[in-house]
Amino acid sequence: MTNAALKLAIETSFGRQSLMSSLGAELEEVSPGEVVISLPFRSDLCQQAGFIHAGVLTAIVDSACGYAAMTVMLEQSEVLTVEYKVNFLRPARGERFQAKGRVLKAGKTLTVCLGEVFAWEGAKSQLVAMMQATMISVQTR
Amino acid sequence: MTNAALKLAIETSFGRQSLMSSLGAELEEVSPGEVVISLPFRSDLCQQAGFIHAGVLTAIVDSACGYAAMTVMLEQSEVLTVEYKVNFLRPARGERFQAKGRVLKAGKTLTVCLGEVFAWEGAKSQLVAMMQATMISVQTR
Amino acid sequence: MTNAALKLAIETSFGRQSLMSSLGAELEEVSPGEVVISLPFRSDLCQQAGFIHAGVLTAIVDSACGYAAMTVMLEQSEVLTVEYKVNFLRPARGERFQAKGRVLKAGKTLTVCLGEVFAWEGAKSQLVAMMQATMISVQTR
Amino acid sequence: MTNAALKLAIETSFGRQSLMSSLGAELEEVSPGEVVISLPFRSDLCQQAGFIHAGVLTAIVDSACGYAAMTVMLEQSEVLTVEYKVNFLRPARGERFQAKGRVLKAGKTLTVCLGEVFAWEGAKSQLVAMMQATMISVQTR
Repeated sequence: MTNAALKLAIETSFGRQSLMSSLGAELEEVSPGEVVISLPFRSDLCQQAGFIHAGVLTAIVDSACGYAAMTVMLEQSEVLTVEYKVNFLRPARGERFQAKGRVLKAGKTLTVCLGEVFAWEGAKSQLVAMMQATMISVQTR
Repeated sequence: MTNAALKLAIETSFGRQSLMSSLGAELEEVSPGEVVISLPFRSDLCQQAGFIHAGVLTAIVDSACGYAAMTVMLEQSEVLTVEYKVNFLRPARGERFQAKGRVLKAGKTLTVCLGEVFAWEGAKSQLVAMMQATMISVQTR
Repeated sequence: MTNAALKLAIETSFGRQSLMSSLGAELEEVSPGEVVISLPFRSDLCQQAGFIHAGVLTAIVDSACGYAAMTVMLEQSEVLTVEYKVNFLRPARGERFQAKGRVLKAGKTLTVCLGEVFAWEGAKSQLVAMMQATMISVQTR
Repeated sequence: MTNAALKLAIETSFGRQSLMSSLGAELEEVSPGEVVISLPFRSDLCQQAGFIHAGVLTAIVDSACGYAAMTVMLEQSEVLTVEYKVNFLRPARGERFQAKGRVLKAGKTLTVCLGEVFAWEGAKSQLVAMMQATMISVQTR
């Protein structure tokens, strides 16, 4: 698959993830082995203290890691999340969040990814969450 | 704190988690060491294949574990998620999802919880995700 | 494979894990979906405070989970550890340690296991570590 | 604490981890926020296929992460492992293993570390395991 075709395939799949549009998340960048998804702050996505809920940050970084894995996998396959682990490093204070997923080790069946979530306030960003994830490639035809 | 006061404190905090009402999640059960949150299927919370997105399941089981931890912690403290790990065991096919969080080991600072997500179709349920989480108690006064 | 053949296959594999005999670990129990490995305390397996090192507890519970997975997998396959997550719940104070691995969800390719490590002093035991692990079946012929 | 004093404190603690000398592990490098431990291959530390057992790799990278955390924590405190998650990326084939722990986020109570294990054959190395760990500082006086 060419890079353009790969990008299109990921954009199409992202467009079919209804949660992403419900959250207001956007596919910001697709390159071989790395995908970035961004999310503006919204007051209806918070936990009890008014910060973005851990589950929302997890959702965008999971999708970023899944699509990063998809950039290195075969075209006939679908990518599913086997498992992930996330550490929350700081309160997710920010106007905008950016989830970067990248491939650490690509395999025929399993691909391991690292994901980072940054919180942005103006021109300043801080790492707020760190993910280590395992993705599986499932043949679809 | 009495059980009634504890339940009220958790209901109040749950009510302030704007994500929970945005997702349509409900606090189903609060007992010492265990909290259950339920979520009806909604087509706007899905991944590309039409199943509930892993991040949504994670959000409800994270909240269930956090509140389970809160049932065994001191009243003047707030509970934050340090980290969690989730395995996804099956496609999350179902009409309704139920996240059960329970305390495995309570501590003064850290509490370790196990969380399970069940998918229900009619009267039949299946375990679809398993969480192991670390929560921290932060003194608020 | 009969249960007796399965038990023999696991005993043979365990005997080939040179680390297990170096640590003094013993295969205590093999049943479908569950394996128990035990380890007497030894002062040369400790961390700086004189407790058994986390890595040793991890080694025995990893092997217990791997063999538990093997009890539910096909006979022509070998089991490898994809990943695990362990929470350490208490200082590992004890004369003897017991690692129990059990299958949570068996699959054709991946099997998810839960592992517990108990520390025994006399007739009293305490849960000191909790593992959630993913195992993969690799065809060997 | 000066860097020299810090290094001495870590060397002293490492010397008291009896498991490290039992495995033949050596403290290779200590710098602020990063610690490296190395281990030559030994045939008595293996799993069934003759590769170093996952638990041994975990032991050295856990210690590397714990000491990396110690470099950024107060001198009166001891560091304990709260939890870790490890992905095994390739068979641990090599003559020598090198575990690098580094601090991702230092905190007053909790410090999050990333750990990598490299397998060396001659002048060539490969990443074989990746850890994400949470360490806690416990006041000792």
